[in-house]
Amino acid sequence: MTIADVAGVTVGHCTLAQGAIQTGVTVIRPHAGDVYRNKVPAAACVINGFGKSVGLVQVDELGVLETPIALTNTFGVGTVANAQIRAAIAANPRIGREEPSVNPLVFECNDGYLNDMQAFAIDEAHYASALDACSADFARGAVGAGRGMSCFELKGGIGSASCVARIGEHAYTIGALVLANFGRLPQLILAGEAVGRRLQAEGHAKPEQGSIIMLIATDAPLDARQLRRVATRAAAGLARTGSVYGHGSGDIALAFTTAYTAPHDAEFIALPPLISDARLDPLFQAAADSVEQAILDALFSAETVAGRDGHRRISLNEALKTRT
Amino acid sequence: MTIADVAGVTVGHCTLAQGAIQTGVTVIRPHAGDVYRNKVPAAACVINGFGKSVGLVQVDELGVLETPIALTNTFGVGTVANAQIRAAIAANPRIGREEPSVNPLVFECNDGYLNDMQAFAIDEAHYASALDACSADFARGAVGAGRGMSCFELKGGIGSASCVARIGEHAYTIGALVLANFGRLPQLILAGEAVGRRLQAEGHAKPEQGSIIMLIATDAPLDARQLRRVATRAAAGLARTGSVYGHGSGDIALAFTTAYTAPHDAEFIALPPLISDARLDPLFQAAADSVEQAILDALFSAETVAGRDGHRRISLNEALKTRT
Amino acid sequence: MTIADVAGVTVGHCTLAQGAIQTGVTVIRPHAGDVYRNKVPAAACVINGFGKSVGLVQVDELGVLETPIALTNTFGVGTVANAQIRAAIAANPRIGREEPSVNPLVFECNDGYLNDMQAFAIDEAHYASALDACSADFARGAVGAGRGMSCFELKGGIGSASCVARIGEHAYTIGALVLANFGRLPQLILAGEAVGRRLQAEGHAKPEQGSIIMLIATDAPLDARQLRRVATRAAAGLARTGSVYGHGSGDIALAFTTAYTAPHDAEFIALPPLISDARLDPLFQAAADSVEQAILDALFSAETVAGRDGHRRISLNEALKTRT
Amino acid sequence: MTIADVAGVTVGHCTLAQGAIQTGVTVIRPHAGDVYRNKVPAAACVINGFGKSVGLVQVDELGVLETPIALTNTFGVGTVANAQIRAAIAANPRIGREEPSVNPLVFECNDGYLNDMQAFAIDEAHYASALDACSADFARGAVGAGRGMSCFELKGGIGSASCVARIGEHAYTIGALVLANFGRLPQLILAGEAVGRRLQAEGHAKPEQGSIIMLIATDAPLDARQLRRVATRAAAGLARTGSVYGHGSGDIALAFTTAYTAPHDAEFIALPPLISDARLDPLFQAAADSVEQAILDALFSAETVAGRDGHRRISLNEALKTRT
Repeated sequence: MTIADVAGVTVGHCTLAQGAIQTGVTVIRPHAGDVYRNKVPAAACVINGFGKSVGLVQVDELGVLETPIALTNTFGVGTVANAQIRAAIAANPRIGREEPSVNPLVFECNDGYLNDMQAFAIDEAHYASALDACSADFARGAVGAGRGMSCFELKGGIGSASCVARIGEHAYTIGALVLANFGRLPQLILAGEAVGRRLQAEGHAKPEQGSIIMLIATDAPLDARQLRRVATRAAAGLARTGSVYGHGSGDIALAFTTAYTAPHDAEFIALPPLISDARLDPLFQAAADSVEQAILDALFSAETVAGRDGHRRISLNEALKTRT
Repeated sequence: MTIADVAGVTVGHCTLAQGAIQTGVTVIRPHAGDVYRNKVPAAACVINGFGKSVGLVQVDELGVLETPIALTNTFGVGTVANAQIRAAIAANPRIGREEPSVNPLVFECNDGYLNDMQAFAIDEAHYASALDACSADFARGAVGAGRGMSCFELKGGIGSASCVARIGEHAYTIGALVLANFGRLPQLILAGEAVGRRLQAEGHAKPEQGSIIMLIATDAPLDARQLRRVATRAAAGLARTGSVYGHGSGDIALAFTTAYTAPHDAEFIALPPLISDARLDPLFQAAADSVEQAILDALFSAETVAGRDGHRRISLNEALKTRT
Repeated sequence: MTIADVAGVTVGHCTLAQGAIQTGVTVIRPHAGDVYRNKVPAAACVINGFGKSVGLVQVDELGVLETPIALTNTFGVGTVANAQIRAAIAANPRIGREEPSVNPLVFECNDGYLNDMQAFAIDEAHYASALDACSADFARGAVGAGRGMSCFELKGGIGSASCVARIGEHAYTIGALVLANFGRLPQLILAGEAVGRRLQAEGHAKPEQGSIIMLIATDAPLDARQLRRVATRAAAGLARTGSVYGHGSGDIALAFTTAYTAPHDAEFIALPPLISDARLDPLFQAAADSVEQAILDALFSAETVAGRDGHRRISLNEALKTRT
Repeated sequence: MTIADVAGVTVGHCTLAQGAIQTGVTVIRPHAGDVYRNKVPAAACVINGFGKSVGLVQVDELGVLETPIALTNTFGVGTVANAQIRAAIAANPRIGREEPSVNPLVFECNDGYLNDMQAFAIDEAHYASALDACSADFARGAVGAGRGMSCFELKGGIGSASCVARIGEHAYTIGALVLANFGRLPQLILAGEAVGRRLQAEGHAKPEQGSIIMLIATDAPLDARQLRRVATRAAAGLARTGSVYGHGSGDIALAFTTAYTAPHDAEFIALPPLISDARLDPLFQAAADSVEQAILDALFSAETVAGRDGHRRISLNEALKTRT
């Protein structure tokens, strides 16, 4: 059960894993077509804005995505944004000439504990490679942008999950994909249990330097205002795992729908009938649940990884086996 | 341990409890003086804006409170706002004449399940009475604005808690007071346990019509921008109890500091040295924890109440005793 | 040419003008039906939040109006909000019982220079009276909520204007209605000319205590996100008259559309095809133009008024005649 | 009179002007030191979010700048952000290792009419070159990031101006620097006169594809919340020149103060006494005035430029001479 349970959504990774370079790029395509030509309704919720993402100013204003969504490390953002612009121009040579521009959308977390970020290892070809790899069947854990990420001082990375929300006679799918790189170990809660405190050997208190990006896809017919309401519920799923949205954690959620698109050249945008706000609670519950499950999926999917300067993050599976 | 552990903060109630009238007013005074003359740094976070509070537009712009904070039922807001204005004028006769105005601040939840809101039972004297009653030693549960409130389909109301946050060699107090009126029973989580599902007899799915107001006081030296960051962490504490911020729930948090005030007539506002943002994590943790504890305090403090049309909300204590 | 050029929009006043009481209520009905049952898509832009309006938190969240829009003086807000709730209950007796609540929407400006605000002269019947008076043919100037308002230290009040915006083969109407109560005389600009400096006799520099409420109606098919974009353009029209959005001026714009409604009981909301954002410039131009014209209309429509304590505001017409 | 009248502020350009490449980078240094180590209080106002700037999410959250401010063309943003990160690491080798990251801040306008943006002519060395060139004495017009910009279909670019705001016995300086690339000719207003309509030969109606970035510096002691209020007043100055904040125009203002800094390693941030909000009107007026003047300065400073595909933008001076 992943975000790809929302029909049309695919995910691809490009993973760099050699010595001190433990990083990568992950791409989420909301549909198989050209997102610039058929824009995707979307909205974000910045829970804690310690983050260097690009693209949110325009998403806030216009309520649509114009490119696939890219995830990478903090210092890779500019390069991946350049790659997104070039990919859009390759498909639409009028961009930057007869048509004004395209809005790249890149989210990041800081993988500097395992990855030598100062090496600036991400280049534009890695975006293209992740884009090409997009598939409904994709790996999770220490892959793509998740390769070097840490979560609760364990190995974090990419996680995904999905839920079905029933509203009246309709069943809608909500899928989440997270890039999980947040939290200190004593905070970790698994299905209500304070597992982190049990796993924590000694009482050091290192401040959090992480972040989490939470992407929510749905096939429910919603507009951008409603999608912002859905994105906001990611904060509830995140909190259930123990997070209090730490100062240094860029906690950002973005929700999009596949129920319709906004064609670039359309004079009018035709929307399907939208679900009445008064009936959204099952979607809100599903959004929170799928984000929580996606975080746990990241923790349980990620393998132990060693990176720069002898730094090492063990997997939750290994921690549970060896420390308890 | 209550919000009054933050030195200077006091709370008072006026409770109406007769037949179909089960409602009231609660007032939180941030300091013992005239809040209009010595304004209190504050900021709010609207988690879900299904709510009818007054005063937040100006708090957002200016970052200060000008009156004590009032809580009441949804239909009592206008009347309590009038009472706040009149109280401010009584102490400052220039308001509305030589000095422009005062910004009333009233939050509300909908107690219409137990209380006959259409009776408009709140009048201005109830605000004055709650204000006069303010004390560091105050009741919680089915009192004041909490009299008619429901929480997880049990009896809700006023709850409070406090924590100490240690930053370097300093210890700061964070106190929370909530007006808890949200949630459906199957959602209830107590300290990580899904108690609600156990208490739920049959599988009805009534949409939520509640709300929660979460007030956070601290003696830590913070400015309005930082207080907004603190208020945002209320969302984490709320989520731990099972909430996903339901559509019909006006979930609003407001944080204020007692570390300094902004005098009305000052040409310059002198601030104490502010805690660096990079060191705020203990305050964020304390804010989430104290909000969670305050919600549980409301549930455990509230007694069973019967109200209009034979409606009845049993207390959590009674539910735990009889249903398990 | 007024806001009533947008088909279905009507305006009514209740004016109190006796001695020191120079105030009133103005009501704008977006359609002839019950706004609670057929909600009106809307969005606001708070340019400067020194204001005590009620209702904006929920408009931001849900993107609809549930009541007619009311304007009054700063101290009348609570009372008019109560009147709006009572009017909604009278038509919908389930509100506050089987149905949770209704969101009153009241904007205010401070008419304390001419009006004795401390007399709290507004009562609930004045709202009902203004509502009953609603008509496409309505007075402007020193009437209704505009009775006691000042603008550029001259007589202000209610003004209105409309424009046609052509997009492709379609012609849409944009109408504005303002409650103009802002500005110091030296700032006043009329169609590009610094008339205020010419009219200003001596060089006193009294700080502004005003505000302006700018309501924009259109028949163009837009959603709430787009209506917020339209409302934002009110800032341009306002600036052209000389305003810099003074500290003490609550400058708030709200835009709504009559192109469709959101029925209270609908499971799905059917929208007409929405105008593509890329084609909105004519509407933005019309919004700025109609707000500027509505402000000038308020100035030119208002007659000289004398109020409390010998205070007097002369009309712009009189000022132009006598001072130049 | 430029933004450099605010003591310590300097500006540098790197200009590319050869054939179809008409673009560049402009850097604004808020002080002579390392901005990462001594962060600069700042806040932004997004008037119309059709824009691809990077860095605003974190400025919103933390209220400080961590790097000099860079301006460039839309497709140069990622590369300049990379350059900013590398410059910060060069001075602070712990960034991305012991210290988490740095927040690059790059604003952009679309110079695609004159400049061949698809050539991606900006490289990281251009940022370094503009940074090295920073001086209190700097060129305006068709230089740096302004090289290829258009304004009202005339030649636009970099403009700057400053004002003094007197508050009590204090005199504060407000300086503005704009990257002006917005507007259609018929909209242009010069000091209240509709000059654009006179200059416009024929009645074509090309939709606007521009943008404007408005930077405001001051030495007044303000916090981030107050700086946002100052930045908001840029909208008034912009409107006076004829803008209605067109759909395709990314209109963004950012204000910063030089009155104090927030040291990176400080446990507490000491602020000077802040000006009371009630006394800010002279600063608001100065912010609007200096932005208007800076736009006019850009128009009057820019020379005629020819660029890609025979495109040519004549200067306002030339237009006034030849067309009237």
